[in-house]
Amino acid sequence: MKIGILGYGNLGRGVEFAVRQNPDMELVAIFTRRKPEELKINSDAQVVSLSEIENWKDKIDVLIICSGSANDLPVQTPKYAEIFNVVDSFDNHAKIPTHFENVDKSAKANGKVAMISVGWDPGMFSLNRVYANAVLPEGKDYTFWGKGISQGHSDAIRRIAGVKDAKQYTIPVESALQAVRNCENPTFTAREMHTRECFVVAEDGADKARIENEIKNMPNYFEPYNTTVHFISEQELKEKHGGIPHGGFVIRVGNTAGDKNHIIEYSLKLESNPEFTSSVLVAYARAVYRLAKEGECGCKTVFDIAPKYLSQKSNEELRKSML
Amino acid sequence: MKIGILGYGNLGRGVEFAVRQNPDMELVAIFTRRKPEELKINSDAQVVSLSEIENWKDKIDVLIICSGSANDLPVQTPKYAEIFNVVDSFDNHAKIPTHFENVDKSAKANGKVAMISVGWDPGMFSLNRVYANAVLPEGKDYTFWGKGISQGHSDAIRRIAGVKDAKQYTIPVESALQAVRNCENPTFTAREMHTRECFVVAEDGADKARIENEIKNMPNYFEPYNTTVHFISEQELKEKHGGIPHGGFVIRVGNTAGDKNHIIEYSLKLESNPEFTSSVLVAYARAVYRLAKEGECGCKTVFDIAPKYLSQKSNEELRKSML
Repeated sequence: MKIGILGYGNLGRGVEFAVRQNPDMELVAIFTRRKPEELKINSDAQVVSLSEIENWKDKIDVLIICSGSANDLPVQTPKYAEIFNVVDSFDNHAKIPTHFENVDKSAKANGKVAMISVGWDPGMFSLNRVYANAVLPEGKDYTFWGKGISQGHSDAIRRIAGVKDAKQYTIPVESALQAVRNCENPTFTAREMHTRECFVVAEDGADKARIENEIKNMPNYFEPYNTTVHFISEQELKEKHGGIPHGGFVIRVGNTAGDKNHIIEYSLKLESNPEFTSSVLVAYARAVYRLAKEGECGCKTVFDIAPKYLSQKSNEELRKSML
Repeated sequence: MKIGILGYGNLGRGVEFAVRQNPDMELVAIFTRRKPEELKINSDAQVVSLSEIENWKDKIDVLIICSGSANDLPVQTPKYAEIFNVVDSFDNHAKIPTHFENVDKSAKANGKVAMISVGWDPGMFSLNRVYANAVLPEGKDYTFWGKGISQGHSDAIRRIAGVKDAKQYTIPVESALQAVRNCENPTFTAREMHTRECFVVAEDGADKARIENEIKNMPNYFEPYNTTVHFISEQELKEKHGGIPHGGFVIRVGNTAGDKNHIIEYSLKLESNPEFTSSVLVAYARAVYRLAKEGECGCKTVFDIAPKYLSQKSNEELRKSML
């Protein structure tokens, strides 16, 4: 299975690593908008300017698009689904239906399989929501995120005047998790489910009280939450907050008609958010390859894929060893 | 979607309840080997002698077979897959490949869809093993069961002379769970993962020391574990241990090539083991119905079914609300 990567940021590098863990795959090319000779990669793949991607039409089985959800994927995924089977990690939940329509049109017109919104949320968390809701139609869903770095919230802090750098952790409220697990069926405000902890490097002479105030009162991002702000040195930020961990919990508490309570809980604890997301992308690239071989086409999500398509093992072997 | 139930024990009653929670389904008949007039059921379904089941050939979309795994399902599932689309909860892991072959042959020869081994283990736990292994190819799997009632172990105690009744709880060792979650990659003996706690009602005048000794030294069932035995009254057994709770944990600890650790954990905490299993059977009955409509046939397991087939919601609605 010949894999191509479009975009060589954290996610692209993660895919490069993940392909190595899957002996049925080979990474053949990394496409970049930068100058190819400036890219330092960690594999034998060829580095190719994005402008030449059409030459690779028949040399790649699945193209994994590792660009940003905000601006790149809405354009790139429909575009490259014209010439490749593709996978992306489009994560703007509200815009998924539109993205799906666009990608579906392009993939169908060109006989390609295109998977969107692959990762952990959307992705593995979504799967667990669907399974749990199907099995327990009467119940309540809860999703908690963290403890982990929120890129969007960290960026928001960095845009404040006087801030040199910052990292923001989203943290689930332990007592809220416990209330859910105790079958109390709570209804939460945003504040009751998550807290936000910020580590900020201020510029020399900046007014820290003003910065802290601006963070805590930022609408949508921080105002609806209990937020803690710590000012630390650049050195400490680098040493103690250099990672990109994340994770969370998807819980459904439901009852069966005999009035018994049941709790289904799925959780992830990830030391590297992009490396895990990449691993999910690579597993679904296998599914895309197999569906394409079977003659399928069009846009797919994780809901459309039978689990067997993700595994390196044969169906017989899966039944024998994992059922 | 017209549902039939074969066998009216705990599981059959659970299916009867679960169908009520799924407005796209209707329970039309319960088939029994007992005298139909002796069955007290909790719905408007018709109670029918098993000997007349062939008359229902065209009146049922999916037959959910709720009989015992040990002796009944190996015979009944291949037999009734000749005339109905069927689902069973065959749970003898070692014999699944043989059962699959037998059911597949019969279902294919008759153009029926037959799902086997549906429930939580095999079932939801198996799904989680496959997803987690596909996403993290390098790592280690752990399955813990409990806290919950093991029917097999309870039965084994009841067979000891002088025992009137008994319930056995399988309990995961908390420190073992923690070691796994701490990414210590431990290798466990059976004793290190689970303990067994037994509540026994002895017959009047029975030798309790001898009973306790027989339990604790029973090969395979109890000898490999740390086992606790409590002698209690029949009244107390009924009051405090009358439920059938169960559950457990499927954990995969894996690493990505950047050498970051990731923990995927799925857990169930069930107040009623049979009612939850029944709910899974009913969700997969929906999938069987839809696959049959699409012209599929043959034996299927949870690995073969795309999540969307389980849900009452349309694909559009799923993408909009759950992705």
